[in-house]
Amino acid sequence: MFSPQPIGYAKTPYLNTHEIPKGLDAKHDAEGVLEILPQFEAGLTDIEGFSHLFVLWFFDRSEGFDLLGVPPIDNRPHGVFATRSPRRPNPIALTVVELLRREGAHLHVRGVDMLDGTPLLDLKPYLSSIPTEKLRRGWLAEAEARRSK
Amino acid sequence: MFSPQPIGYAKTPYLNTHEIPKGLDAKHDAEGVLEILPQFEAGLTDIEGFSHLFVLWFFDRSEGFDLLGVPPIDNRPHGVFATRSPRRPNPIALTVVELLRREGAHLHVRGVDMLDGTPLLDLKPYLSSIPTEKLRRGWLAEAEARRSK
Repeated sequence: MFSPQPIGYAKTPYLNTHEIPKGLDAKHDAEGVLEILPQFEAGLTDIEGFSHLFVLWFFDRSEGFDLLGVPPIDNRPHGVFATRSPRRPNPIALTVVELLRREGAHLHVRGVDMLDGTPLLDLKPYLSSIPTEKLRRGWLAEAEARRSK
Repeated sequence: MFSPQPIGYAKTPYLNTHEIPKGLDAKHDAEGVLEILPQFEAGLTDIEGFSHLFVLWFFDRSEGFDLLGVPPIDNRPHGVFATRSPRRPNPIALTVVELLRREGAHLHVRGVDMLDGTPLLDLKPYLSSIPTEKLRRGWLAEAEARRSK
């Protein structure tokens, strides 16, 4: 395979996992800064033209994985690939953020949901969106329906 | 960091990179199968309730990276983090697929854009979508405008 390397680190308001809004449907409005390492800054060329970015990052404070787990917003177990649990075979996380502004190698963004100091793996432009009416939201929709009863 | 491990492999119609529709805006309608390894099958529990999935995979036939590159649909260089180039500091790819059906550990999907035999790293439910009217598409929109002149 390959040896992952940090391209930078996230500066966020979250020092402990319990401060982070949890669950597949959690809203993330917190602002933060993606501090890209100087040696990768040229890779940000033209990124300011995009309003939203995919951020791939490393669950660096998670260890091991569970194939089945009970997510914070449900009381039933689901497969790890049907959740965003940090305890995954490959501890890679994915977050969509809104790019507010760029200052050199620092990207100011909205929508961070990772701990302060988290190593970043990759950034990609966010482009496509699946129309809401075509999305099925699986166990999440069912758990929401049960909770609202 | 961590040691990536394959959770399975993609079965796709693409044997050579030149067969894959290229560019940030390419449409991917090809069908394929995500063959998850038996030891990870339990992690798929309830995944069939989701219509779309994020697939994280390994650019296993790419080597090294370029911070600046000219994408297939443009004639100007852009930063690697503003493109989907396979030559990235961490060779991790991201594809959104539509889940057509599950047969045990095999997920039949639409929208594959990876080579046959590509190692898979992770699957996550696709949920949120940014409203189209809020998306800015950076150099891609400009390149499209230039091409259509």
